Amino acid sequence: MRKICFVINNRANYARIKSAIRECTLRNDIKVQIVVGASGLIDRFGDVVEIIKKDGFEVNEKLHTVVEGNEPISMVKTTAMSLLSLSEVFYRTNPDIVVTVADRFETIATAIAASYMNIPLAHTQGGEITGSIDDNVRHAITKLAHIHFPATKKAEEVLINNLGENPECVFHVGCPSIDIAHETKGETTKSIMTRYSGVGADLDFEKPYILVSQHSDTLEYAKAKEQISATLESINSLQYQCVWLWPNMDSGSDFISKKLREFRENNQNSKIRFYKNFEPQDYINILRNSTCIVGNSSSGIREASYLGTPSVNVGERQRGRVKLSNVIDVAYNSREITEAIKVQILAKSYAQDLTYGDGTSGRQIAEILATCKLSVKKNPISN
Amino acid sequence: MRKICFVINNRANYARIKSAIRECTLRNDIKVQIVVGASGLIDRFGDVVEIIKKDGFEVNEKLHTVVEGNEPISMVKTTAMSLLSLSEVFYRTNPDIVVTVADRFETIATAIAASYMNIPLAHTQGGEITGSIDDNVRHAITKLAHIHFPATKKAEEVLINNLGENPECVFHVGCPSIDIAHETKGETTKSIMTRYSGVGADLDFEKPYILVSQHSDTLEYAKAKEQISATLESINSLQYQCVWLWPNMDSGSDFISKKLREFRENNQNSKIRFYKNFEPQDYINILRNSTCIVGNSSSGIREASYLGTPSVNVGERQRGRVKLSNVIDVAYNSREITEAIKVQILAKSYAQDLTYGDGTSGRQIAEILATCKLSVKKNPISN
Amino acid sequence: MRKICFVINNRANYARIKSAIRECTLRNDIKVQIVVGASGLIDRFGDVVEIIKKDGFEVNEKLHTVVEGNEPISMVKTTAMSLLSLSEVFYRTNPDIVVTVADRFETIATAIAASYMNIPLAHTQGGEITGSIDDNVRHAITKLAHIHFPATKKAEEVLINNLGENPECVFHVGCPSIDIAHETKGETTKSIMTRYSGVGADLDFEKPYILVSQHSDTLEYAKAKEQISATLESINSLQYQCVWLWPNMDSGSDFISKKLREFRENNQNSKIRFYKNFEPQDYINILRNSTCIVGNSSSGIREASYLGTPSVNVGERQRGRVKLSNVIDVAYNSREITEAIKVQILAKSYAQDLTYGDGTSGRQIAEILATCKLSVKKNPISN
Amino acid sequence: MRKICFVINNRANYARIKSAIRECTLRNDIKVQIVVGASGLIDRFGDVVEIIKKDGFEVNEKLHTVVEGNEPISMVKTTAMSLLSLSEVFYRTNPDIVVTVADRFETIATAIAASYMNIPLAHTQGGEITGSIDDNVRHAITKLAHIHFPATKKAEEVLINNLGENPECVFHVGCPSIDIAHETKGETTKSIMTRYSGVGADLDFEKPYILVSQHSDTLEYAKAKEQISATLESINSLQYQCVWLWPNMDSGSDFISKKLREFRENNQNSKIRFYKNFEPQDYINILRNSTCIVGNSSSGIREASYLGTPSVNVGERQRGRVKLSNVIDVAYNSREITEAIKVQILAKSYAQDLTYGDGTSGRQIAEILATCKLSVKKNPISN
Repeated sequence: MRKICFVINNRANYARIKSAIRECTLRNDIKVQIVVGASGLIDRFGDVVEIIKKDGFEVNEKLHTVVEGNEPISMVKTTAMSLLSLSEVFYRTNPDIVVTVADRFETIATAIAASYMNIPLAHTQGGEITGSIDDNVRHAITKLAHIHFPATKKAEEVLINNLGENPECVFHVGCPSIDIAHETKGETTKSIMTRYSGVGADLDFEKPYILVSQHSDTLEYAKAKEQISATLESINSLQYQCVWLWPNMDSGSDFISKKLREFRENNQNSKIRFYKNFEPQDYINILRNSTCIVGNSSSGIREASYLGTPSVNVGERQRGRVKLSNVIDVAYNSREITEAIKVQILAKSYAQDLTYGDGTSGRQIAEILATCKLSVKKNPISN
Repeated sequence: MRKICFVINNRANYARIKSAIRECTLRNDIKVQIVVGASGLIDRFGDVVEIIKKDGFEVNEKLHTVVEGNEPISMVKTTAMSLLSLSEVFYRTNPDIVVTVADRFETIATAIAASYMNIPLAHTQGGEITGSIDDNVRHAITKLAHIHFPATKKAEEVLINNLGENPECVFHVGCPSIDIAHETKGETTKSIMTRYSGVGADLDFEKPYILVSQHSDTLEYAKAKEQISATLESINSLQYQCVWLWPNMDSGSDFISKKLREFRENNQNSKIRFYKNFEPQDYINILRNSTCIVGNSSSGIREASYLGTPSVNVGERQRGRVKLSNVIDVAYNSREITEAIKVQILAKSYAQDLTYGDGTSGRQIAEILATCKLSVKKNPISN
Repeated sequence: MRKICFVINNRANYARIKSAIRECTLRNDIKVQIVVGASGLIDRFGDVVEIIKKDGFEVNEKLHTVVEGNEPISMVKTTAMSLLSLSEVFYRTNPDIVVTVADRFETIATAIAASYMNIPLAHTQGGEITGSIDDNVRHAITKLAHIHFPATKKAEEVLINNLGENPECVFHVGCPSIDIAHETKGETTKSIMTRYSGVGADLDFEKPYILVSQHSDTLEYAKAKEQISATLESINSLQYQCVWLWPNMDSGSDFISKKLREFRENNQNSKIRFYKNFEPQDYINILRNSTCIVGNSSSGIREASYLGTPSVNVGERQRGRVKLSNVIDVAYNSREITEAIKVQILAKSYAQDLTYGDGTSGRQIAEILATCKLSVKKNPISN
Repeated sequence: MRKICFVINNRANYARIKSAIRECTLRNDIKVQIVVGASGLIDRFGDVVEIIKKDGFEVNEKLHTVVEGNEPISMVKTTAMSLLSLSEVFYRTNPDIVVTVADRFETIATAIAASYMNIPLAHTQGGEITGSIDDNVRHAITKLAHIHFPATKKAEEVLINNLGENPECVFHVGCPSIDIAHETKGETTKSIMTRYSGVGADLDFEKPYILVSQHSDTLEYAKAKEQISATLESINSLQYQCVWLWPNMDSGSDFISKKLREFRENNQNSKIRFYKNFEPQDYINILRNSTCIVGNSSSGIREASYLGTPSVNVGERQRGRVKLSNVIDVAYNSREITEAIKVQILAKSYAQDLTYGDGTSGRQIAEILATCKLSVKKNPISN
């Protein structure tokens, strides 16, 4: 029986791996170990531990690794703290495979700790290209990983053709986040929202609303305030109801939070309500039921394309991704944002797009984790 | 004027970048900053600080980052400590470019700290392929780096064709270590050795000797003792004079050190003398004057090929490298090692090979560092 | 010329040492070095760096050491991070004396780093007794310190008679915070508040107001929410205007912040306005001009007694202190708090009390730092 | 049932607490948890884990916390690493009491982690006075500890009268190390030494020998080399057989190790044999069978006085201790050392002295740990 260790560092990580965890727990040949660290433990970014427990999984380790601060030095130090804590967890518990998700900055700590300690490392979302700084981290993790679970066909090709990975270790399985979208039964946003409080305007969830999720672009974190302002201004001018998610923990997120708080203080009549976190299934329905999603969350690309939800993708953070019919790219410019939203309001919805998966990703990942050949020797690149 | 920060983590790092540092100090448009960390500060691995000072350079920062231990967890923790210290140095001193050398495990800390803090990162020796675990670290650093200084034509091709780097940021300049080999005036080993003490047998340096430099292969660090034994047995059976370098700091190095110490205690009549460290120029002459070099140091490939010194490359650590005429590859097997040494003793020497550089690498690097376009945005891979 | 290094970890630290720093900068025989770390750099606790700069001092080092989290483990990890950063600062800059202030948890890092590195350590506020967990930290620092600056006569006696310190190294100088109270020229709160924004009710600063500053009691941090509720309820029921300071960074402070935010959302008609931070002089005037101070800040004891401002001291955090005529002690109980406030409103003001100093503390400290005998050998306790 | 966590940081720690651990494991109302960290895991300082396992106890946690280096900054960083690791152990395992031993620099990490996390802390050897830097650490730990187990009557008085501890929490129980001396059956050194290898001269253990154990005095670590030289010179000039223990890990220990290695290389005819570590019982017999013990190990005071073994105490490290009839104090001066050894050779042996315990310490400690009232509130000092 293999012990598979999933390292979850934030709310988004969890939604992107949850179905794979569940499928692993259903097997007799896998013992699941769940480690939650970084912003996954921090209340103001949405404590993931409670959500995981509610889903019936056990959180085996909680690692306090976030070094507070709004400048990039805190990202480096948080990565260091993650290395210190994860190395002790791996040393003590000795997993057969470590699974790391996507590309957030602290994710590289999981990759280094596992690979330096000669533990096979599996990585999801490798090979994707966005054009942002996340690319660097994602590709560096690829070079440390032994088993790859790219979400798209194109990402699989990048891993093999452009990053020199061994095709035998690359498995195009789709994104587990699509499994959630696939499985989640519909629920009205009105019903969902009885379980969340939020702060700001009182919204009427029988009427349409826009969903906003916009994070800091760490390459330009000093501009985070002006970037978020463009979106705020656009949404406010439209006077359309809006569900707004707090940003995740990145350099610049404090600038965003501050701007959002200032806005709230000074715009008591806005139609925006702010929420910290939703459970993955609830998020799917809030997204599905929305008029459109605005910002730079990757869910505006991946889950939205599966659901056919219109999406306005702001700025550079997701710019290099595969182009999808439901997405309109705009700059950090309130006029551009407003116009794109207007187009999307008219569009209503798009056809389902299976680029990011067909709902079987978690099951495929579990099968591969249980049965794949394990080795920490990577084939050398041969050119 | 650009401030260029060189991070040196061990004795080998320094020899591989020294000529570039010197060329930078000679320019008016560059201010050099030297940071020494990790095993570079540890006496038992050969304190690099004194050597750098003797060369007339100033050591601006000394970072105590080595977490002691013989298991891989210490490599992870040392990397974490390097992140913590380097992030503070970069925060306080704000360099324009950070230069990192090669592929040792703690080197990734330099790459993460610089790239997360939006400082352009230059990397030497990217694109090389050895087949060992170092490949993973080296390639991961490549994906975080903005400016690449590959040592060979083939490495340049790997960076561009197999790792997706932008050709405009890849500069084939050769290896600065060849500059040292190129510039160093001959000196007899007898004369050099008056400046070093060492322990073990008294050697007659007017007679021929073999040079041994064999490190732990971290993927198989638990086998380090038996691997070093094969080489010890071979050298001892030949009863040929031998200059033996202590291993560097890696998981498994304690096993090697212990074995070497045991050997010394129990073989008072051997013809082996052990040394901790040589200055780069002295090392070149000791290598040049030797009958052959044995082990798995990359100097047996790169400097030795330039000097035409016969080389017996033991085990997997350098296995995947470009094949060169002066190198015989053998397994960790005393009989194989002995036979290869006998062949090399007869070979005497080989023709100079310029695969790893022609002696102008440092000057080229300095020129590029002074004048290249600086950006922390990397072009997305386009496939 | 002696290099004196002041380590400032939060807004309160600075007010308690500022006059000593100023007096040191005025001398020719002292070079001042200022290090700001821990919550002193965190915007949500009140960034101290800007305040120090405005006072005309240079901040020489900024150390990002706060590990985020609301549980005590974060206090331990923050202490560890402070040790790592401070040890590098001391190693690099080599001060003649390090000065540490009071008793917050991360303060022990300054004491350990300096004393382990054989640098004489001066400590202010040693020997005070409050009955809270802070006593343990304060007394432990005393045992590591070489030069003691107790604020009161009684504290001096505790240091010598109860903690075994050498009388020759104990200097009763008063508290530098009293110097600020002594020197600060009066200014109306109305005028001061034009420089601060705050959030919450609009107050009329021509009318009287209460000042609240209540922190978490770390020994009972899980009760922080209910403890703060008692005070909130009391203040709210009185419908008296109130200036409320956010809590500092301690285990439990998140519970307090959360409760305060909830209160704000749900009590839009309250007469409470919340502020993050005031400059030391402004704080003095806001305190001086207030009807009374409520909570468990030590300023309710020390500065308030000097100013004669009525004080309601809630809970255990300051319980063991010297009793002063201007202070009424109450439990975490809204009824008790309300009654005490009513008494203090009637009391109006008290006579000036010089227990904590007469306004010359900073000058005395500077003189001693410049001229005292320096040694890191402490006299053994002789009993 | 109480979970009692013993933190062991080095070989000496273990001998000083072993009998208490054993007595705890024999009880039904205590569950023992053993944590080994710091130099306890480092082979070159004597790996304690194997010794503990051989005694039949389980090592529950191994914490890699040693930051390598010979300067005091490494002591600070090692303390920081211990804080990080211990805080995670305490967070995850939640012990009822943490037990810390004596006064080594990294011991303060145990005290801080436990007390900050509101876990009752028990401390052995508090209240002792040596006059060295260790006093500061020992007394600081006392101020953080909740339960005190002083070894001597005098130490008990110091804790209560000079350090302000509550008499109800101070238990004079003697030192567990005396239990080992009390219980250990005699064995000839010749027989013991068949189980240890060592390096250096071949000794005839049927003939008398001196035992040397001399560590660095961290306050004067830069003088460590000259201090050890005095002892080496003295022993060498006497040409008396000598069992010499390597120093423990402190600033300056590298200087000592280096000097010892040099001496070995250059004095192949000396009568000194060097050993890294002995198991506690074996150490007792080696001490008991020796002509006298020389150096600054506290075993020259405590175990030696119980055994009646003559002792020559060199330098300041143990200077302030209770004076005992078997001890002669000398300076770091080879002539003084030689003369004192000659006196002790003639003295042969002294009467048993029970100052440090009567052999029942472990049982008393276990009983108190199982039954004492637990609280993390310390009584305020009342003066």
